[in-house]
Amino acid sequence: MLEDKNNEKTSLEKLGEFGLIDHLTKYFTINHKSTIKGVGDDAAVLDFKNKKTVLSTDLLIEGIHFDLSYMPLKHLGYKAVMVNISDVYAMNAKATQITVSIAVSNRFPLEAIEELYAGIALACKTYNVDMIGGDTTSSNKGMLISVTALGEAEEKDITYRSGAKPNDLLVVTGDLGGAYMGLQVLEREKEVFKVNPNNQPDLEPYSYIVERQLKPEARKDMVELLRKLDVKPTSMIDISDGLSSEILHLCKNSKVGCHLYENKIPLDPTVINSCEEFKMDSTTVALSGGEDYELLFTIDQADFPKIKGNPNLTVIGHMTDAEGGANLVTRADTLIPLTAQGWNSFQGS
Amino acid sequence: MLEDKNNEKTSLEKLGEFGLIDHLTKYFTINHKSTIKGVGDDAAVLDFKNKKTVLSTDLLIEGIHFDLSYMPLKHLGYKAVMVNISDVYAMNAKATQITVSIAVSNRFPLEAIEELYAGIALACKTYNVDMIGGDTTSSNKGMLISVTALGEAEEKDITYRSGAKPNDLLVVTGDLGGAYMGLQVLEREKEVFKVNPNNQPDLEPYSYIVERQLKPEARKDMVELLRKLDVKPTSMIDISDGLSSEILHLCKNSKVGCHLYENKIPLDPTVINSCEEFKMDSTTVALSGGEDYELLFTIDQADFPKIKGNPNLTVIGHMTDAEGGANLVTRADTLIPLTAQGWNSFQGS
Repeated sequence: MLEDKNNEKTSLEKLGEFGLIDHLTKYFTINHKSTIKGVGDDAAVLDFKNKKTVLSTDLLIEGIHFDLSYMPLKHLGYKAVMVNISDVYAMNAKATQITVSIAVSNRFPLEAIEELYAGIALACKTYNVDMIGGDTTSSNKGMLISVTALGEAEEKDITYRSGAKPNDLLVVTGDLGGAYMGLQVLEREKEVFKVNPNNQPDLEPYSYIVERQLKPEARKDMVELLRKLDVKPTSMIDISDGLSSEILHLCKNSKVGCHLYENKIPLDPTVINSCEEFKMDSTTVALSGGEDYELLFTIDQADFPKIKGNPNLTVIGHMTDAEGGANLVTRADTLIPLTAQGWNSFQGS
Repeated sequence: MLEDKNNEKTSLEKLGEFGLIDHLTKYFTINHKSTIKGVGDDAAVLDFKNKKTVLSTDLLIEGIHFDLSYMPLKHLGYKAVMVNISDVYAMNAKATQITVSIAVSNRFPLEAIEELYAGIALACKTYNVDMIGGDTTSSNKGMLISVTALGEAEEKDITYRSGAKPNDLLVVTGDLGGAYMGLQVLEREKEVFKVNPNNQPDLEPYSYIVERQLKPEARKDMVELLRKLDVKPTSMIDISDGLSSEILHLCKNSKVGCHLYENKIPLDPTVINSCEEFKMDSTTVALSGGEDYELLFTIDQADFPKIKGNPNLTVIGHMTDAEGGANLVTRADTLIPLTAQGWNSFQGS
């Protein structure tokens, strides 16, 4: 559907809700045995047999969570799925189904919605997730997307936020701060564009961090890697609001403290360079930036040999007794209490 | 929380997202064994064992689906749950869990959100449904609610839209058109209020239809009644968009036609009286009004003696071969093809 060079726009009003649903759902296929009935009845019907069902949901709202002036609709659709299935992977589960509800104002023609669904369909295909339902409606302002993701897991494999013990190692996948610095670059280019619409931005030096912002990938591969390495995390969470906020969640739910080592936080060179350019502190960016969708987890020290040397997994600290609190151990070897400065949509940041 | 007479308003900005979630979720309890983990981790964890999982989702948007000038927030919360669990009952399943996501602009103080959640909590309690998660965020305009409802059923009990056969009887629960006429009354009073804000409307004569609009009840009782009567519908759907639209869904999915008898459509006297007052045709209102949240289903003729004479169940027609199409048999005994004139949010009706 992305090949359509026809410039005529189709109004949603003409198509109606059922027409739109019929039109959009034909791009999706059902692949999981657990999906008995997807789109097309009052409700979807699923069968997880002896496995547990895992379920998470998120709202994404134009002007709050995304800016269509630099977020292509296809990327937005893809990211909306990632944000949700990332929560399923954070339970150490396999993502299997999603529902997608959208509300759009009349300013969006059918072709725009098709772009959005092309991204959703790509995410479903890449991550092997069935689209099983949703709702489409008009809004009186802008666009919003509500995604619910389902997954399945054996009871023994599920990781909660609450299982960390003192002396467990704190591990993070990938690197941090990229999505936030990508956002800084995009926001700057938006301002430049406002002043000079003919200016062609050169985003090439920033391609890694811009992609981290616009097309994040959920860490399905890391859940599979951990299984292959025979490591079951004692606790796990995904990094949506920033490392600091997520560590505090693990500490609170597991009733433990933490030592996080500043010099261990994995940063891509592009993040370090852009932090210098924007005069920002890279540790602060990693701690509070958010939207990295990496996995943060704790493991028993006995499992350390299994993950040692793996380039995707970085030990960034260890858990302590609750009394010690959650602390950053700085490069100067001083302890600073971690505070949640993650993103809060109720403060017009 | 409804007893709070303190008039000071608390801003959501001050509370933040996690504070708001903590504050709101403490009013909910978990009652189902299938809920292993509700709010408080990356995802909820459920265990439906050998039963099938049923799932449905809906978006409700201020200015499109509800008008806060006459819809109290507590009623809105209650209705948002009803709209969704109604879809679960339409599968002949038991509603067990919901997730609720909301986006609200800064114009809503905490106390308003508490009212909304009081309605959600009342619905959860009345219908024995666990609140297991959701998302809260700010919006740049108005309020929106996204609810996902889950249920469970034995495979043999599930009713799809696709099982109706020619000669099956078409049955509806309760009566129709009330919610739509209630909306007409409320819209009229809103106009009167605009002209004269001191006017005190007397809604007493309209209490039944106003309640049908503001506080609909999903027909859990009818699913239970059918089980007690040992009747398994061959197909079922809930009436959200109007009788006509839902009959066409059953016909299309079951590949059958239908004779719907105009003189059999159950109408409450208040609906008939208000239709006369508003100079509207009561059949049209029942066919296209929507929001009644009654159940429409088909049964094998052999099951007729089981439902005969039950005041909650009305046989309104029978299914035919697909060739005959879906038709209304008027009081004058003429056939008129049914058309879907249900509500379409993309047309600014």
